[in-house]
Amino acid sequence: MVDEAINKAQGKSFTVHAPGTVANMVCGFDVLGLALNDPYDIMTIKLIEEPTVVIHNIDSYDLPTEPERNVTGVALLEMIAQLDNKTGFDITIEKRIKPGSGVGSSAASSAGAVVAANHLLGNIFKNDDLVQMAMFGEKLASGVKHADNIAPCIIGGVTLIRSIMPLDIISVPSPPLYVTVVHPQIEVRTEDARQILKKQILLKDAIRQWGNIAGLVAGLMKSDYKLISRSLEDVLIEPVRSILIPAFAEVKAKSLEAGALGGGISGSGPSIFMLSKNEAAAFAVENAMQEVYTKTGIDYHTYVTTINTQGVKVVE
Amino acid sequence: MVDEAINKAQGKSFTVHAPGTVANMVCGFDVLGLALNDPYDIMTIKLIEEPTVVIHNIDSYDLPTEPERNVTGVALLEMIAQLDNKTGFDITIEKRIKPGSGVGSSAASSAGAVVAANHLLGNIFKNDDLVQMAMFGEKLASGVKHADNIAPCIIGGVTLIRSIMPLDIISVPSPPLYVTVVHPQIEVRTEDARQILKKQILLKDAIRQWGNIAGLVAGLMKSDYKLISRSLEDVLIEPVRSILIPAFAEVKAKSLEAGALGGGISGSGPSIFMLSKNEAAAFAVENAMQEVYTKTGIDYHTYVTTINTQGVKVVE
Repeated sequence: MVDEAINKAQGKSFTVHAPGTVANMVCGFDVLGLALNDPYDIMTIKLIEEPTVVIHNIDSYDLPTEPERNVTGVALLEMIAQLDNKTGFDITIEKRIKPGSGVGSSAASSAGAVVAANHLLGNIFKNDDLVQMAMFGEKLASGVKHADNIAPCIIGGVTLIRSIMPLDIISVPSPPLYVTVVHPQIEVRTEDARQILKKQILLKDAIRQWGNIAGLVAGLMKSDYKLISRSLEDVLIEPVRSILIPAFAEVKAKSLEAGALGGGISGSGPSIFMLSKNEAAAFAVENAMQEVYTKTGIDYHTYVTTINTQGVKVVE
Repeated sequence: MVDEAINKAQGKSFTVHAPGTVANMVCGFDVLGLALNDPYDIMTIKLIEEPTVVIHNIDSYDLPTEPERNVTGVALLEMIAQLDNKTGFDITIEKRIKPGSGVGSSAASSAGAVVAANHLLGNIFKNDDLVQMAMFGEKLASGVKHADNIAPCIIGGVTLIRSIMPLDIISVPSPPLYVTVVHPQIEVRTEDARQILKKQILLKDAIRQWGNIAGLVAGLMKSDYKLISRSLEDVLIEPVRSILIPAFAEVKAKSLEAGALGGGISGSGPSIFMLSKNEAAAFAVENAMQEVYTKTGIDYHTYVTTINTQGVKVVE
């Protein structure tokens, strides 16, 4: 089957769009994520004979091209191993999701690559396999195999990773939601953001948190925006991590005043995301974010987008 | 409004059935509960002039009749205070849910009473008010105000208590489920079962737990029995509390072998509950439970029931 798939893929080439993602979704640390319609990376893949990965970066981020040091590279090397080293890949990457911004840049690089490669091979791997391969990229990027960006990037929408071992990925139906993001141009390393978390927490705080994640899932599945709003509360991670993000409390307060349902740190930051029920609120939230960040003097970038329900998209 | 309600209620009497409940539902410690069609308490209420509670027990449990020492009493005393002491209640209680069995006996006593009294008064209180009043009973019974038995007892079905302060109760739609219960005739005091829990837990265990509760809510709302089954896992409370329940591990293992979707300790025990997709599995689980407990030499009682979707029912 592998040989046939490789034969059929000879001479072909496909381009995919791999979306940014918001991990954690406030109360779902390490288990929830959602895919964004913007930004996305563009990747074009084709086979090569040698069982390795040749990477061409056509953006300005100067990421490593040695496959072992590149998140796309390690994910594809894992796929190549599973293909018994019978082929290799040549991939051209235009990153549009800024590395380190907190909206799943590394996940898009690894997830986009394995989905593109799988498409080239006639989809011989299942989504769960692709998630497993792409997690090698997350391991390289942050030291930990986690799927809360990978899974929504691949399958789209709001995604629950109930368990990593064994892998158990669940799509959570969601009503339409607008997402407003502010990305302050500072660096927060995922590894650092992980290390400042306490390894022990209070049971009573954990109870509050699992009440909220249960409320959020119920709210999304009932299209109950008020319940979604009430459930977007994080008593455990946000109080610790938000100290790494300038003006976090003010951005959050002003965004809620402007009509956001709620929000918080996107992944491990520094981006902050807010969910809104409609476009007008989402743009009012963007204005509020801009007002706060303009005062800080820190460079920043804001955008308004919606939930990507499809995941990585093959465009040609 | 209060005066009018009291006037209209003079000379009337109502009887209610207040159902047993399963709190926690394995991965939803302190926040999830479900109502059972069996067993239930039977309570008949009427007004009296003096602002107090007169309790008639017509069962064999010899519970206190002084209202301040009785869970029904304290819940109704709270309602009387909110009625500006303009009336009192006479209530006759036939408890069929054995106190201390772990299926919400105290919650049925307090929740049934306030629902019955409210019905008598033309439903002047909202469900949230009734939950607040009934929680005085839970405080008396276990030292802690919790609503994970009260809320499902009052509104029926599977219920999420996202938050106690402020009170936020959410109905979680569920597919049909059969519930098999074994009640070993030993005493586990709720207070003791609470005290053996660790106040500090590992973040990684909490993450596993909130992945499971999110999975359980999604599974119930999607009618995905396999997902429900996978999510019925408790890495935090069960390992500690199950040591108080003889043969717990064996009951669980044999129940799963017999076809249960999953289950665990009902509330703080000693009852063990198992959920099944169909009646045949539920009775096979009952057999398995009986086999295990017969060997232990401990007296026990088993029953098979279904989810009560209505909550406390006014029968006449």
